[in-house]
Amino acid sequence: MSTKEIPYKIYLEESEMPEAWYNVRADMVNKPAPLLDPATLQPITEDALAQVFCRELAKQELDDTTAYIPIPQPVRDFYRMYRPAPLVRAYCLEKELGTPAHIYYKFEGNNTSGSHKLNSAIAQAYYAKEQGLKGVTTETGAGQWGTALSMASAYLGLDCQVYMVKVSYEQKPFRREVMRTYGATVTPSPSMTTEVGRRINGEFPGTNGSLGCAISEAVEAAANQEGYRYVLGSVLNQVLLHQSIIGLETKAALDKYDITPDIIIGCAGGGSNLGGLISPFVGQKLRGEADMRIIAVEPASCPSLTRGKYVYDFCDTGKVCPLQKMYTLGSGFMPSSSHAGGLRYHGMSSVVSQLYHDGLIEATSVEQTGVFAAAVQFAKVEGILPAPESSHAIRVAIDEALKCKQTGEAKNIVFGLTGTGYFDMYAYQRFNDGQMGDYIPTDEEIAASLAKIPKV
Amino acid sequence: MSTKEIPYKIYLEESEMPEAWYNVRADMVNKPAPLLDPATLQPITEDALAQVFCRELAKQELDDTTAYIPIPQPVRDFYRMYRPAPLVRAYCLEKELGTPAHIYYKFEGNNTSGSHKLNSAIAQAYYAKEQGLKGVTTETGAGQWGTALSMASAYLGLDCQVYMVKVSYEQKPFRREVMRTYGATVTPSPSMTTEVGRRINGEFPGTNGSLGCAISEAVEAAANQEGYRYVLGSVLNQVLLHQSIIGLETKAALDKYDITPDIIIGCAGGGSNLGGLISPFVGQKLRGEADMRIIAVEPASCPSLTRGKYVYDFCDTGKVCPLQKMYTLGSGFMPSSSHAGGLRYHGMSSVVSQLYHDGLIEATSVEQTGVFAAAVQFAKVEGILPAPESSHAIRVAIDEALKCKQTGEAKNIVFGLTGTGYFDMYAYQRFNDGQMGDYIPTDEEIAASLAKIPKV
Repeated sequence: MSTKEIPYKIYLEESEMPEAWYNVRADMVNKPAPLLDPATLQPITEDALAQVFCRELAKQELDDTTAYIPIPQPVRDFYRMYRPAPLVRAYCLEKELGTPAHIYYKFEGNNTSGSHKLNSAIAQAYYAKEQGLKGVTTETGAGQWGTALSMASAYLGLDCQVYMVKVSYEQKPFRREVMRTYGATVTPSPSMTTEVGRRINGEFPGTNGSLGCAISEAVEAAANQEGYRYVLGSVLNQVLLHQSIIGLETKAALDKYDITPDIIIGCAGGGSNLGGLISPFVGQKLRGEADMRIIAVEPASCPSLTRGKYVYDFCDTGKVCPLQKMYTLGSGFMPSSSHAGGLRYHGMSSVVSQLYHDGLIEATSVEQTGVFAAAVQFAKVEGILPAPESSHAIRVAIDEALKCKQTGEAKNIVFGLTGTGYFDMYAYQRFNDGQMGDYIPTDEEIAASLAKIPKV
Repeated sequence: MSTKEIPYKIYLEESEMPEAWYNVRADMVNKPAPLLDPATLQPITEDALAQVFCRELAKQELDDTTAYIPIPQPVRDFYRMYRPAPLVRAYCLEKELGTPAHIYYKFEGNNTSGSHKLNSAIAQAYYAKEQGLKGVTTETGAGQWGTALSMASAYLGLDCQVYMVKVSYEQKPFRREVMRTYGATVTPSPSMTTEVGRRINGEFPGTNGSLGCAISEAVEAAANQEGYRYVLGSVLNQVLLHQSIIGLETKAALDKYDITPDIIIGCAGGGSNLGGLISPFVGQKLRGEADMRIIAVEPASCPSLTRGKYVYDFCDTGKVCPLQKMYTLGSGFMPSSSHAGGLRYHGMSSVVSQLYHDGLIEATSVEQTGVFAAAVQFAKVEGILPAPESSHAIRVAIDEALKCKQTGEAKNIVFGLTGTGYFDMYAYQRFNDGQMGDYIPTDEEIAASLAKIPKV
């Protein structure tokens, strides 16, 4: 334990910021299974991937041997605009809970995208620009990723086209407006502007949309425009690589004060935040240098790790993307319209899936009313109104801290506070008015969805 | 000029944070004129003021001789949750403008209230709690102040009742919801719950409300409840005192890198941000230790400094508050429903008014379409979507930096970025859609309003 007095916020100096991303796959004994080409069902080649993604990103996607990949200088310059993100000691929350535990959170919300998504958005936009592309297409659920990509594209002078899950488009008009302010075009998905959108609208009239649908539309839109590529904000290996900046900074801040984490907690939708936060710590575990509990928290309404199957599945509803081996509820799974839009994805990053499969991390699921109760408790004492997604991690961090209160243990609990809830006030209103419910899919619903996963 | 390399963001260490507020009135040769009791038109006593405000705040309001007033430890602890605020070197904006000027901004938006208002909210709530009060009442225009007070009250366990200018209440339902999340009661003003509200609704049917009305209602509500006091987020001497933390931190950050400011720019509504930012620098000017230009920026739609009169006037529409000598457009002035709600106030802090009257600071007014153009330009390169209020300062900072481009001067320009625009997306939408106009009151309109100011 540290003997130095720990400040409320640990900021790294700019000179202490990481200069390379960490690729946890290099240290994994069991590598994530390869992506499969949807046409051949064979492992996809870099050339085939480069038809969908930028060339450099296709390379990063397939590289499971290089441990450290240098962050290009222009990306590091952009990072300095909003990073390093503080590692905050939650002194007030500890006092409120009366726990002997020491609680820390890595706060990624202090930028206009409101989340960690900007870390990968600027990297992906940079490689697109370097390749001489005109623009990028993408999907967004809760809106953080779309906002992040809009910001990165505006900064670099790239065109940005966002397919936004219809329910979010309607519930979050102001999110859409932030993207428009940064010059992006925003289309509610499923739309009638793509073939796959028209097909899904035909099959599910009046659908609220899903991330899986929006991905299919964005991929099609990129394929149909000269000088465009598709980019994705989560799930992919490349995204987890970029997001490792979260974990690297967290580890550097902890090391600066000789703090050894006992438990690390992150919310898990597609896995971008969780994977980024835990990478360097998982690396320590894999190399036998340290040990700690790592907990992935997912919503009870969309429990891919805790109730899904570890198999090959499609990443998108339209089945145009490569197949991935992952914990999945089936690409046709339509999660309830919960308020944590960023966690409503049927699958999980293949890196996180493999780590979970190998017992290197745990997983748990929580219900949204409990999540919002934790969010409000946290907001009142820590002064930050958290995003619903991030609040899944808060819920479990509080629960673990309360266990420490029972046992008297002064554990070091670290969680990822991925973002702010300023565009989620409709959800908070539902909660404040006592109108929020919980939705947990039945075993039958999940079994029916799992049954539709193709045999590969 | 500094020889050290200047980082993108200058953060003070917690140990370097100010331990006392600076009271610029102590150094002013011409003190601000005293507040007058509305009943007697004589200078108000501390006892009379303490009927409206907390005792300690009444004392601070009248103290024009103590230069440094210690910040209570619990307030300093709260400050450490979201402060120090960074002083940011706007490298990207400089590059975008191609200016030799060095541009710095003090960013106060990294907290859930989204602005500097929290600096005074926690101080005022603390003194209310210390006095054993049950709760506080207040008004809010744009909503930042109401949010800040809700947060501070939740932290200390005080009841918080907010009268929110009706047009903001309707345009910003999510702001209201943040306050409710922090446990506050929010009432649109003018309401039918107070006598003054009913009177104003009767006189101006269908009125959108104004800060002046909402103040009157909040004062009445406090007077009618045992254990309640009224608190105000701007204009008052006590508020500028608390907000001096902005200027003190800014000066400490500049000093750390041997940077001498040539121009300091702040937006000015009631004067809380401007007064706080400039206080230590005005102190230097008053003591003959340094000189620099200081520019107050107000909206052309509500130009109290540039087109108002320097006379005694009421602070509120209902005429229940003490009278103050200030630059004013008349307490009956109804500004157009511009999108910078935080600047729609008919008067100006008496400290700022006196400094302007004595030629220690300049003032200028800008139109809102130009302000939003500056906001979007800034957002795209600096990554922060600014509040409309703050963007008034950005407009003038950009204009001054462009003048430097003409003259080739590498001036140090410092401006206050008071907050973020995440709850102002309706305004951005109007701007993005080309539907935003400018409104400048005619000479006749202003003359008519000025004519109604009482002779004291």
